[in-house]
Amino acid sequence: MAKGISVKKSEDISQWYTEVITKSDLVDYSDVSGCIIFKPGSYAIWEIVRDETDKLFKEAGIQNCYFPLFIPEKFLTREAEHVEGFAPEVAWVTQTGSSTLSERLAVRPTSETIMYPSFAKWIRSHRDLPLRLNQWNNVVRWEFKNPVPLMRSREFLWNEGHTAFATKEEAEAERDVILGIYQKILKDYMGIYGSVGYKSEREHFAGAEYTCSIECFLESGKAIQGPDFHHDGQIFAKAFDIQFVDENEQKQYVWQNTFAITTRMLGVMFMMHGDDKGLILPPPVAPIQAVIVPIYKDDTKDAVIRAAAGVHEQLFDVRSKVDDRDGYSPGWKFNEHELKGVPLRIEIGPKDLEQNQVTLVRRDTGEKIPVDFEHVHKRVQDVLSDVHGSLYQRSMKNFEDSVVKCSTYDELKDATANKKIAYAPFCNEIEPEDAIKEETQGVKTMNSPFGAECKEGEVCVYTGKPAKRWFYFGKAY
Amino acid sequence: MAKGISVKKSEDISQWYTEVITKSDLVDYSDVSGCIIFKPGSYAIWEIVRDETDKLFKEAGIQNCYFPLFIPEKFLTREAEHVEGFAPEVAWVTQTGSSTLSERLAVRPTSETIMYPSFAKWIRSHRDLPLRLNQWNNVVRWEFKNPVPLMRSREFLWNEGHTAFATKEEAEAERDVILGIYQKILKDYMGIYGSVGYKSEREHFAGAEYTCSIECFLESGKAIQGPDFHHDGQIFAKAFDIQFVDENEQKQYVWQNTFAITTRMLGVMFMMHGDDKGLILPPPVAPIQAVIVPIYKDDTKDAVIRAAAGVHEQLFDVRSKVDDRDGYSPGWKFNEHELKGVPLRIEIGPKDLEQNQVTLVRRDTGEKIPVDFEHVHKRVQDVLSDVHGSLYQRSMKNFEDSVVKCSTYDELKDATANKKIAYAPFCNEIEPEDAIKEETQGVKTMNSPFGAECKEGEVCVYTGKPAKRWFYFGKAY
Repeated sequence: MAKGISVKKSEDISQWYTEVITKSDLVDYSDVSGCIIFKPGSYAIWEIVRDETDKLFKEAGIQNCYFPLFIPEKFLTREAEHVEGFAPEVAWVTQTGSSTLSERLAVRPTSETIMYPSFAKWIRSHRDLPLRLNQWNNVVRWEFKNPVPLMRSREFLWNEGHTAFATKEEAEAERDVILGIYQKILKDYMGIYGSVGYKSEREHFAGAEYTCSIECFLESGKAIQGPDFHHDGQIFAKAFDIQFVDENEQKQYVWQNTFAITTRMLGVMFMMHGDDKGLILPPPVAPIQAVIVPIYKDDTKDAVIRAAAGVHEQLFDVRSKVDDRDGYSPGWKFNEHELKGVPLRIEIGPKDLEQNQVTLVRRDTGEKIPVDFEHVHKRVQDVLSDVHGSLYQRSMKNFEDSVVKCSTYDELKDATANKKIAYAPFCNEIEPEDAIKEETQGVKTMNSPFGAECKEGEVCVYTGKPAKRWFYFGKAY
Repeated sequence: MAKGISVKKSEDISQWYTEVITKSDLVDYSDVSGCIIFKPGSYAIWEIVRDETDKLFKEAGIQNCYFPLFIPEKFLTREAEHVEGFAPEVAWVTQTGSSTLSERLAVRPTSETIMYPSFAKWIRSHRDLPLRLNQWNNVVRWEFKNPVPLMRSREFLWNEGHTAFATKEEAEAERDVILGIYQKILKDYMGIYGSVGYKSEREHFAGAEYTCSIECFLESGKAIQGPDFHHDGQIFAKAFDIQFVDENEQKQYVWQNTFAITTRMLGVMFMMHGDDKGLILPPPVAPIQAVIVPIYKDDTKDAVIRAAAGVHEQLFDVRSKVDDRDGYSPGWKFNEHELKGVPLRIEIGPKDLEQNQVTLVRRDTGEKIPVDFEHVHKRVQDVLSDVHGSLYQRSMKNFEDSVVKCSTYDELKDATANKKIAYAPFCNEIEPEDAIKEETQGVKTMNSPFGAECKEGEVCVYTGKPAKRWFYFGKAY
């Protein structure tokens, strides 16, 4: 077991997670309960996720903006279902300096209600549409459940996309674009497989017509929601009076979407890929992709350090670093970089020098790969790509191997009690889902893949009534 | 005068500014008093300023992180001068959901007091130093003065750098690095000249040993502070008990700096460069550097549009765009892009086509430059570079031409009353500066350039006592 990690991942994943993310310098606790500190290790990863997502948003025609942190209470309460969803978790500013405010200000839990009065003002004609805006910001949801760093934090970072279209068709056409972007980020950068589909009626966003999500599944048998996309129809448009004059001079309400990816995904990624030695970072998001560790005695030091510098130079397009700190043994360094999840270690010792080679060590498998000095660059790129591919494949396999097709409620209960995902036909009504959750201590629908409509004769696993869609069910994290 | 701008810049700069920044789609008012909306136009500029500054910080070895938005009251009050400086402007969270908090939480006005308890925890040994962290975030200062969009907003965006060193020398050596970065951003990106130097005792940061700043001066005769750098000595280190064990096993307090550039600089830039037609954006920060406007009748449309696309293609490394919107006349488009400050317009009409040329029109001077089709790329790059150079030169000339060397208080009052900068020897004490400010309705020290120590025999322009440094004085914005 790694230095300082007191439990195996398989024994107690919660304890393992907490120890790994704090001891590997990713995050720290703050003195504000439920709010964490993103240390440089985790923030650098978030920057990569944010910047890559942002590039794809911009290519898709979405523009960034920034709205105020504070929302006057009267705005927050304008859409009934929305306020019901968020009010219990709002942090309220009531005083400024030594004055008391006449109206409380909500610290944004999400920005619909501060943005849409502006949408109503800015959108006049069909020429002003589509309006596709995004913010990268911080939001606060004062949850009273047990906070878990990154996974359930009272303040978190995210993107919130808010778009308005002239027609429902155009709005809904954006769905595949956005989910495609999020899927690409999860797959190509974070090495995470997820199921893309519709959330249930019970689980959709407060104020949306329907919600789509990417749902992930952890080895520990817990389901967790990733990025989501909400089609709001005209619900907010009506609450905030967002109308435009169409080409026939008729007033129409706009059709809206919202979508988000949050820093919770970092937590999912750390929890999904790590092992008993610590983190395993997917190379595309690893701030250091390859660490070069020179191994030497006094008489070989100069030559080895020189060779290490040569390797570093060869790796011009790899985020690499030479760990030549004095006073730490190679073994100590190996442990530290393993704990921190550096995907590839490159060892260079006197014997390697004699043979004109280095040794690559994969973080995910521990495999040792001797490589001739002149081929290091190419091989490092290949191995990093292999590491990423393996992490993603493992993530996908874990999901697929966990799915149990169920046609009865007993099967569903068995599967989810055995840390599996139940895949079952469901009526998609609110009370049955509430009942399932209560009776099973926490099993919820994850989502229903696109195209998973039920056929004639398929009945709901809970009610026995005609079923609407096949849903994944899992114990929620 | 541009469409919709009702005053000349020289007649009423405040009114001009407000109209220009709202009508050119940079910002909008929100329903939270004093908090503005960054529309895509201004946010895209902030992204460039932020990203270029961030690159330079990273090259200098500074790492990004993110600390909680909220600061427990007991932390905020730990350093006496600091809390005195900020408490009157703090927004307080007192309730969450339907509960009342047992301790109020400050919405960060700046993050010293939430970061430094962690510094105290993380820094143990000289090996942990230097610690050089930065955040890009939002802060709230509930000023009760008349808010002005960007220039004085209750919520703004900024960087806050927080660093800790083993020795005072190392800490102070960071000063030139940071001020050099800010100066480069102001000069090379924003086209702004500023005086670099020490703030007075009266004007330094609450909790710093001394403050350096870059001070700007607007044509309207108003001084305004740009980015700043604070050397905090061991003031916070002692208040937050940030100690390390040095190489001789002795406990020592660290030496600290903080530094910031804020979205206020966008306001300074808009106010400084604009003219009666609207904004003038320096090319390095302009989201659109060159707008291509095709001018055609029905029979020439296809050929002109095709040529415009060809120009756009040639300008592969220039942020350019073809404005081929139907239903708007070329003149209407010219006005709009002038209002929005696009630094270069490229006109292509049927006559240009015949002569195999386009016409470049500089936003800053209005100069029209015919250019052969095949030389467009090179000439556009040159002209954009010229535009930027001219803006910066004008900014510098305005500053330098405004300086009046004064040896008496009457001269100082005259100069500043005549919208000039007074440059005068000063005792650098707090009461005299307070007195000057009161007697002149708002004249303050700007800063004192490096190397501007007074010589033997030079006396303070206000007290007649021996003077310490030459200071710039100006009416504060």
